[in-house]
Amino acid sequence: MSMGSIFLWEMIGTAVLILLGAGVVANHVLRNTNGHGAGTLFINIGWGFAVFTGASIAAPSGAHLNPAVTLGLAVAKKVDWDKVPVYILGQFAGAIIGAMLCWAVYKLQFDAHDEPQNTLGVFSTAPQIRNYTWNLVTEIIGTFVLVAWILLSPSVKVGADGVPTFGNSALGYAGVAFVVLVIGTSLGGPTGYAINPARDLGPRLAYAFLMPIKNKGRADWGYSWVPVVGPVVGGVLAGLFALALPS
Amino acid sequence: MSMGSIFLWEMIGTAVLILLGAGVVANHVLRNTNGHGAGTLFINIGWGFAVFTGASIAAPSGAHLNPAVTLGLAVAKKVDWDKVPVYILGQFAGAIIGAMLCWAVYKLQFDAHDEPQNTLGVFSTAPQIRNYTWNLVTEIIGTFVLVAWILLSPSVKVGADGVPTFGNSALGYAGVAFVVLVIGTSLGGPTGYAINPARDLGPRLAYAFLMPIKNKGRADWGYSWVPVVGPVVGGVLAGLFALALPS
Amino acid sequence: MSMGSIFLWEMIGTAVLILLGAGVVANHVLRNTNGHGAGTLFINIGWGFAVFTGASIAAPSGAHLNPAVTLGLAVAKKVDWDKVPVYILGQFAGAIIGAMLCWAVYKLQFDAHDEPQNTLGVFSTAPQIRNYTWNLVTEIIGTFVLVAWILLSPSVKVGADGVPTFGNSALGYAGVAFVVLVIGTSLGGPTGYAINPARDLGPRLAYAFLMPIKNKGRADWGYSWVPVVGPVVGGVLAGLFALALPS
Amino acid sequence: MSMGSIFLWEMIGTAVLILLGAGVVANHVLRNTNGHGAGTLFINIGWGFAVFTGASIAAPSGAHLNPAVTLGLAVAKKVDWDKVPVYILGQFAGAIIGAMLCWAVYKLQFDAHDEPQNTLGVFSTAPQIRNYTWNLVTEIIGTFVLVAWILLSPSVKVGADGVPTFGNSALGYAGVAFVVLVIGTSLGGPTGYAINPARDLGPRLAYAFLMPIKNKGRADWGYSWVPVVGPVVGGVLAGLFALALPS
Repeated sequence: MSMGSIFLWEMIGTAVLILLGAGVVANHVLRNTNGHGAGTLFINIGWGFAVFTGASIAAPSGAHLNPAVTLGLAVAKKVDWDKVPVYILGQFAGAIIGAMLCWAVYKLQFDAHDEPQNTLGVFSTAPQIRNYTWNLVTEIIGTFVLVAWILLSPSVKVGADGVPTFGNSALGYAGVAFVVLVIGTSLGGPTGYAINPARDLGPRLAYAFLMPIKNKGRADWGYSWVPVVGPVVGGVLAGLFALALPS
Repeated sequence: MSMGSIFLWEMIGTAVLILLGAGVVANHVLRNTNGHGAGTLFINIGWGFAVFTGASIAAPSGAHLNPAVTLGLAVAKKVDWDKVPVYILGQFAGAIIGAMLCWAVYKLQFDAHDEPQNTLGVFSTAPQIRNYTWNLVTEIIGTFVLVAWILLSPSVKVGADGVPTFGNSALGYAGVAFVVLVIGTSLGGPTGYAINPARDLGPRLAYAFLMPIKNKGRADWGYSWVPVVGPVVGGVLAGLFALALPS
Repeated sequence: MSMGSIFLWEMIGTAVLILLGAGVVANHVLRNTNGHGAGTLFINIGWGFAVFTGASIAAPSGAHLNPAVTLGLAVAKKVDWDKVPVYILGQFAGAIIGAMLCWAVYKLQFDAHDEPQNTLGVFSTAPQIRNYTWNLVTEIIGTFVLVAWILLSPSVKVGADGVPTFGNSALGYAGVAFVVLVIGTSLGGPTGYAINPARDLGPRLAYAFLMPIKNKGRADWGYSWVPVVGPVVGGVLAGLFALALPS
Repeated sequence: MSMGSIFLWEMIGTAVLILLGAGVVANHVLRNTNGHGAGTLFINIGWGFAVFTGASIAAPSGAHLNPAVTLGLAVAKKVDWDKVPVYILGQFAGAIIGAMLCWAVYKLQFDAHDEPQNTLGVFSTAPQIRNYTWNLVTEIIGTFVLVAWILLSPSVKVGADGVPTFGNSALGYAGVAFVVLVIGTSLGGPTGYAINPARDLGPRLAYAFLMPIKNKGRADWGYSWVPVVGPVVGGVLAGLFALALPS
């Protein structure tokens, strides 16, 4: 697969992922929506099937949609290192596009929101209790579970060029959706399960610099490195773990 | 497949879709039901599996069940344009039948409802904040995701005669159910995700002209074109998008 | 398949179905449980996957688990009429066993319940608004959707001896679970979706004559024929419908 | 498969199972989480897909993850008795590791919890109404359903060495996830559905002896044998049941 195609499919898939993932949080958080206050399970289910939808579309490039997945696959020697940057660039481009599309869908609700300074949470994660060390631990473990599942589940075969195929299992991308759903219900309590640097930093950049939300809040740059470094560490550890296991 | 068979299967499938989709809203909205106030996730899950049920039954004609899907497939050269009108007619006929069946299921609840003027929402969508431009944007993006997924997901193969088959994926129509579920959780907040002209206008016509609900409300014709035009534009854009992508 | 095996597998499968189906209602209704007041979606999901579990186990006999399904298949000429009685006997025997097992699981909760006269609803359905004609309509439509889906969904092939196989679809019995789930969310509002004479009358008999619940309520025989006649009519109509469609 | 590999995969899979299963309870129970008070369905869904995730990873050893499953398979002559101890040791080792990882994920929440004496429930089950006889009955029936489903569902083939494969069904481990989900919704009301000695006793040991939670509560050793003996009896009975059925 060409570098251009990798970029294109990762961008499209990640845009759909973030549009739907940020969208379910917007529906829960903002007022004047049908889903206001619909709760944590609602959000977890939304993010799970956001992965399903974006990943199904991005199947040609393997549907990484997440730098931590790409890095974990590279460490496990399933994707060439020279393709890693283009995967990650496509993912960040898509995340920014998806965040802007989500803003457009909920534009009227953002305009009418009475606490515009509290809208960062639609797009990026924040810890319930701020402690960088333990917040990192939480993000590392959550991402480790995701990437280890992709590398170890027998229904996923990672072929040449780092393209994981789910074709032998009829569940297809529903499997990874179920895994992301349960990471949300089970490991998302303390930090909101970024488990994906593009998912968190891309929309944060869009929020800070692109979105015309009046009186919007700050981008919380102090925390912003945690949902980047934690997932990267978790993904790399999962790659090393898969390498170390007897085949 | 004959024109008559297309009409028949689209009519049956859309009738089941609307019976179950309007049904879950009736269960939530009306009083004296088991599901009164059961919430947004309840509604989203109901609509998702309403699609699964109706689409499984309408598989012979490809289970479009939605003029926006038919138009998107036609634009992407997956269905012949001369068959488009019969698809759409079948879908509208089915939507009207399904709405009437839903009314019959909940007949006692409609009779006992103390706010009969507020029952349009069981059958047709309305915006939380009325602004035709941005309501259109929301409906366009939601429909685009649906139709793009059908055109791009590798588990769906659109064959001759515009019949999408899900046969290579054991998920079958559960895949499209998951996509409609997440469009509901994530993009349904502002306008109630019509994403289907037949789903919205058909039941609106049935509500206005056929249903014997005493003191029922108005059909809100002022808004009624938005959930028709938005999905049509979204479906056509998705068809053009699929055409433009490198194959 | 021998008559004895049909009886055995239908009995086992229906026992599991009713154990889990009555169980989720018990968990919601009774006090001193983990699921007290967990809501309608909780109950609908429980019943849906109760069907999945019971049907998977009863696959050898085709997993009808429901006289309305057996009758619909017989009308559609998919099962021999001479086997119908043994199917139905197995289903009723299983339903009674399942209800007694559910009582055993929740025995301490029944003993501690402060409104024992209101416990019939754990086992059998009741209408929210009592009107035999329209309650029948609701049950007929709900059962029609179930049996029509089984007869028409291309993922289900009904072979000789009335054994529906789901083997060509990897969803297997998850498909019928999704259909029962959405019938619950969408058509269960007015009457609690019996859609199965054995599911309703079997546990009602067990409640009235076998369960040692102190100060328990009455079995509501006045209504008891509705969730028998409605599903039978709905199943037969679905069989006739399938026969009438062009093949 | 070597004894070492059995131990390794059962340990890894059970660790993931308990990390995610205890995690969803922690998210619900502890304060300062995103999922505080999210409810019973949330917990049941989390446990269901925890099984999916852990079982997918542990597929090489058959993903028993539960001594009751291993014993049931051994009784049904599907796994050699000499391998039973290593399966069970791996499951207990994994359960302890998973519990400690869950503690690490929620470390800040445990530190901030104002009722640390009430945190055992994150890791181990307790009855709503304490009565050892009937609590045993509940656990026996719940485990019987799980193990009987594994032994009888035609989508599961238990091969040589006790490795159940789900390969003929594209649902794969989603099937067993649905079964655990419905056991939770339907049979989990009275005792919290341990249905797995390693799932309950392993984390209880970790809680009592390893976790540095300040002012933590007692391990409730008086009840601790019930969620061990009940599941063992239920699993053995399911194995005998499967043996007794005509093949």
